[in-house]
Amino acid sequence: GKNVLIVYAHQEPKSLNGSLKRVAVEELSKQGCSVTVSDLYAMQFEPRATRNDIVGFLHNSSEFNYGVEAWEAYKRGSLSKDLIEEQKKVQEADLLIFQFPLYWFSMPAIMKGWMDRVLVQGFAHEFPNCYDSGLLKNKLALFSFTTGGSEEMYAKGGISGDIRYLLWPMQHGIMHFCGVKVLAPHICFAPEYVSEEKRKEMLTAWAQRLKTLWKEEPINCSPDWYFK
Amino acid sequence: GKNVLIVYAHQEPKSLNGSLKRVAVEELSKQGCSVTVSDLYAMQFEPRATRNDIVGFLHNSSEFNYGVEAWEAYKRGSLSKDLIEEQKKVQEADLLIFQFPLYWFSMPAIMKGWMDRVLVQGFAHEFPNCYDSGLLKNKLALFSFTTGGSEEMYAKGGISGDIRYLLWPMQHGIMHFCGVKVLAPHICFAPEYVSEEKRKEMLTAWAQRLKTLWKEEPINCSPDWYFK
Repeated sequence: GKNVLIVYAHQEPKSLNGSLKRVAVEELSKQGCSVTVSDLYAMQFEPRATRNDIVGFLHNSSEFNYGVEAWEAYKRGSLSKDLIEEQKKVQEADLLIFQFPLYWFSMPAIMKGWMDRVLVQGFAHEFPNCYDSGLLKNKLALFSFTTGGSEEMYAKGGISGDIRYLLWPMQHGIMHFCGVKVLAPHICFAPEYVSEEKRKEMLTAWAQRLKTLWKEEPINCSPDWYFK
Repeated sequence: GKNVLIVYAHQEPKSLNGSLKRVAVEELSKQGCSVTVSDLYAMQFEPRATRNDIVGFLHNSSEFNYGVEAWEAYKRGSLSKDLIEEQKKVQEADLLIFQFPLYWFSMPAIMKGWMDRVLVQGFAHEFPNCYDSGLLKNKLALFSFTTGGSEEMYAKGGISGDIRYLLWPMQHGIMHFCGVKVLAPHICFAPEYVSEEKRKEMLTAWAQRLKTLWKEEPINCSPDWYFK
């Protein structure tokens, strides 16, 4: 059985995001996967990258450099407990699913904080081990999210531009940088503006996709995929 | 004199970001501008969008929808105090400067939380008042940031792709959506890997640009600018 980590960012269990998360846990468990959920709001996950992430002394206390301090702390095993726990979950996972509502063309701040704080140098990347040779290679990631805007708004030539444009920082800039291969995103457009029946179809479609997920090929995570 | 709000996200006053912020305060004040700084880490600004942002009762307490609740709370004046204060600063500003180190092809989570929580519907946008008719029209924004990667990495065809690709969600998806006109970004590439002298030149160049900032024309914030 594969290991799956779902990093989930919604305040309300009854939301469509909550249901999408539940569907994924059920379907993947049924397949024999071991599924772990990081429910960021329920955990009150800390999004701010601060000195508190380093236990004990600093490498250079006269001028605080978060990236350097987190890297050094990782090497000597003195990152804060919440980060060590998240890194352990990532390490054990074959697949990372990020489940969230799109906030401002990106993930909610609480999830961005997970990226900022968990994926530290030494753990997820370490120059020149980035992109195809990133330290998290052999893992997969999938961004599953809901939008406020409609599919038409996020079409090429639409007012909000091709939805792929906004995937670049998340899929290429974060996941690909760490060596993670990216599966096609799963997008539920404007669930707040469709019928209850249509929302149920969205859940069914997600469950259906998960049934054959392990046969999917990753996207070619290069500018061509995003901007052509 | 014009009003300027600098939203600043760095933990260390001695950092280049700290110096860039200081230079902006000095230069703009010298010009007769009234400058306000939101120093997000010093304020311990809350990045998480939660029920705590709404004072008192909820519009729909059986299923929490952050966007709807924040919108309703805005209309009846019951957003949390920190948000009301930030909105007042935005309302008074002619120019918003965002000063930060690039984290994962985007802004640090603490600043993303400022966007998520401050720019609520009713205040910054309200359909169909978005993009060119967004509620914050007649304001300017400028993203000023430092990178870890070099200018070559962020060139078209470079391993990290054209730096403009990652500006799309921030400049178009957030600022343009709210009607704010966007000035060209100010980017200091890889300050950690250059000489002290070169870093001083970066500060001088920023001060120099600010001298004629009010004569600048906004960019044409459409896909052409980003992806051509």
